[in-house]
Amino acid sequence: MKRRSAAETVQGITAPLGFVAAGGAFGIKRTGKPDLMLLAGRELCAAAAMFTTNRLQSAPVRVSRRHLQTSRGWVRAVVCNSGNANASTGRAGLRDAQSMCRRVAKLLGCRTDQVLVCSTGIIGRPMPMDKVLRGIEVLARRLDRGAEADRAAAAAILTTDRVPKTAYRRVRIGGATVQLAGVAKGSGMIAPNLATMLAFLTTDLAIQPRLLRLALKQAVRQSFNRISVDQHTSPSDTVILLASGKAENEPIRRTGDPRWKTFCRVLTELCSDLAYQIVRDGEGATRVFRVRVIKARSVQEADQVAKAVINSPLVKCAVHGSDPNWGRITTAAGASGAAIREERLSLWISADKKGRGICVYRRGQPTAAGAKPPAALKRIMSGLEITFTLDLEAGRAESTWLGCDLSAEYVHINADYTT
Amino acid sequence: MKRRSAAETVQGITAPLGFVAAGGAFGIKRTGKPDLMLLAGRELCAAAAMFTTNRLQSAPVRVSRRHLQTSRGWVRAVVCNSGNANASTGRAGLRDAQSMCRRVAKLLGCRTDQVLVCSTGIIGRPMPMDKVLRGIEVLARRLDRGAEADRAAAAAILTTDRVPKTAYRRVRIGGATVQLAGVAKGSGMIAPNLATMLAFLTTDLAIQPRLLRLALKQAVRQSFNRISVDQHTSPSDTVILLASGKAENEPIRRTGDPRWKTFCRVLTELCSDLAYQIVRDGEGATRVFRVRVIKARSVQEADQVAKAVINSPLVKCAVHGSDPNWGRITTAAGASGAAIREERLSLWISADKKGRGICVYRRGQPTAAGAKPPAALKRIMSGLEITFTLDLEAGRAESTWLGCDLSAEYVHINADYTT
Repeated sequence: MKRRSAAETVQGITAPLGFVAAGGAFGIKRTGKPDLMLLAGRELCAAAAMFTTNRLQSAPVRVSRRHLQTSRGWVRAVVCNSGNANASTGRAGLRDAQSMCRRVAKLLGCRTDQVLVCSTGIIGRPMPMDKVLRGIEVLARRLDRGAEADRAAAAAILTTDRVPKTAYRRVRIGGATVQLAGVAKGSGMIAPNLATMLAFLTTDLAIQPRLLRLALKQAVRQSFNRISVDQHTSPSDTVILLASGKAENEPIRRTGDPRWKTFCRVLTELCSDLAYQIVRDGEGATRVFRVRVIKARSVQEADQVAKAVINSPLVKCAVHGSDPNWGRITTAAGASGAAIREERLSLWISADKKGRGICVYRRGQPTAAGAKPPAALKRIMSGLEITFTLDLEAGRAESTWLGCDLSAEYVHINADYTT
Repeated sequence: MKRRSAAETVQGITAPLGFVAAGGAFGIKRTGKPDLMLLAGRELCAAAAMFTTNRLQSAPVRVSRRHLQTSRGWVRAVVCNSGNANASTGRAGLRDAQSMCRRVAKLLGCRTDQVLVCSTGIIGRPMPMDKVLRGIEVLARRLDRGAEADRAAAAAILTTDRVPKTAYRRVRIGGATVQLAGVAKGSGMIAPNLATMLAFLTTDLAIQPRLLRLALKQAVRQSFNRISVDQHTSPSDTVILLASGKAENEPIRRTGDPRWKTFCRVLTELCSDLAYQIVRDGEGATRVFRVRVIKARSVQEADQVAKAVINSPLVKCAVHGSDPNWGRITTAAGASGAAIREERLSLWISADKKGRGICVYRRGQPTAAGAKPPAALKRIMSGLEITFTLDLEAGRAESTWLGCDLSAEYVHINADYTT
């Protein structure tokens, strides 16, 4: 599911036709690092977005959500700053998010509600609007295609991520070559802010906003919604997908269209790629682990169990310490709230993301390897990637989640920083 | 709510009339520390118990649950070993838990189902039954009242707790002097097992098992069910309450009886006292913090919000680092799943468990103290106990939860140990 893009030429968000971008440093961050990005279509793009489920939503989330509605999903640009989240900032924050859109709209010659906005960084502090607006003016003049623009845009949305996160796919859809690209920021929290997750995706596919929304929803559900660094959604989490239509394929108009299925598959791959990169770069993370729940009654049940195991601090510590302490995994599943039946529960531990590996618990009974962990199990637990497969023997649904270990470094990053 | 028992003479579980106990070391633990406890009534006692909500239940939990039913809540003794949880041990585990009860019953001259059993320690390993049964024989001869027996019993149920946990209350109920006492073990996980929570409570009150059950349920809901060290219920969590009836009060037969209310109040105090001690001794814990959610629509909603904040690793790290990073608290509440309205949400941070302290966020707007945390706030965050009060302005219900910080020590304890 989560393929690395290493084998492919990684191209940036302006690789799909019809997009330009720019990024730069304007003093919004105290460190002087890049802190403002502008992404624009040459013309209006079909747009879809998914926002945080946190009940506390940042001003940019509220403004973007509204703009997406009133513009009926036809968007010209996305502006994003890092260094200040514009969250928990009340009415002043809403005004600031609005002005960012208004300024972009004026410079690009579109309507204000055809611009979406994102912010990530410190919570509860007023936005340095002078710097932000000056930055927008500069970036609007600097909008361009190509590697330089791509790199600048990818860098400008990071907070304390160690590396930029980019993904790219190219696919033949109904006779046309369609490109998809994305950049993301993940969870670094040295600054006193949340593990905000942002992703901006572009494609030159021609597609209706309604279908684009469906495709994005499905892709996000299987990728970004199945990762967890520390189980804490931020008020700013946002994924935005823009489709320029410049691939000049015959527009996709219905979900029955086989080209739509192909697009959904590749979009899910692209998102999974970015999701994997976010987890790998999770705060203090030294290992990645997958929880695969199989034979569940429903995908919801599989998700519930996998999520509980991915978030368990005891499991995360066991992974960190290469400890084949499988009782923590089975009992985290037991504590998930799902109606698991112990006499049907089995657990495999594997180095391979698809293979089942070594069975430590079979239908409610510890196996020989479970009762006395062999050296082979210890070796698997010492790897950089580990997969736990939980078989519920209750149905046919399954789900795979991705998480990272809990290290003392995580605690240092999040505790030793003081405002 | 969570009063420390320091001011009162702490007496043990044999202080209430009609109880004897014993504890000792029988090699169940490799360390040679005490590992077996026997608690008995001189005659049958009214009994009530609450068990883990984890779907994976240890063999002792399953056996005790069944015994409590078939004995109709009249119990003679509780046997508990530490060092091996007898969990995830399949059919062999059930046989072992049964034999423990059978041996106690034979020695005390009661029915097997009049004995309850608990185990805590390593998961998934066979029980060393020779040692356990030999220990039971020894302890049955050693059963006694008084400080010595109390201490031995309190020590024998610990795993990696740093200190034993005991509480005691004495109260006049309807003309009679009634005593309540309890011992508990909490969450130390240096050994590869879970944060098992066990508590054994005794009282000499005369009361029907049905009413005893109601009282215990209510007390547990307000105490043990509102603490969290690492959000992971164990397959062994058990609270058992025995009532000998030796206080010779007129038996309480209905909930309308004002004596029942008094008993419930004192029992809740006793449980809160033990619950506090468990959190204070949580793994790697250096501070205790309370989350008080007020003006919620329902207690369920207040619990949902408080639990999410208590369990948030970001909040726990902020508490550890004395970081007045209140955005983590409000957004953890926002991520709880409760239908919070940001424009009604306020947050106070206080050193005092009842006082509201400093307001950092009022009705969706950061206050001056929130926008620029003053020195006073930093001082509060540096204390050993901190209270966060979240006002939802949605109703009249409230709830207070107790948790501890997340330290690098927690990670070391749980990761660096390898089997």
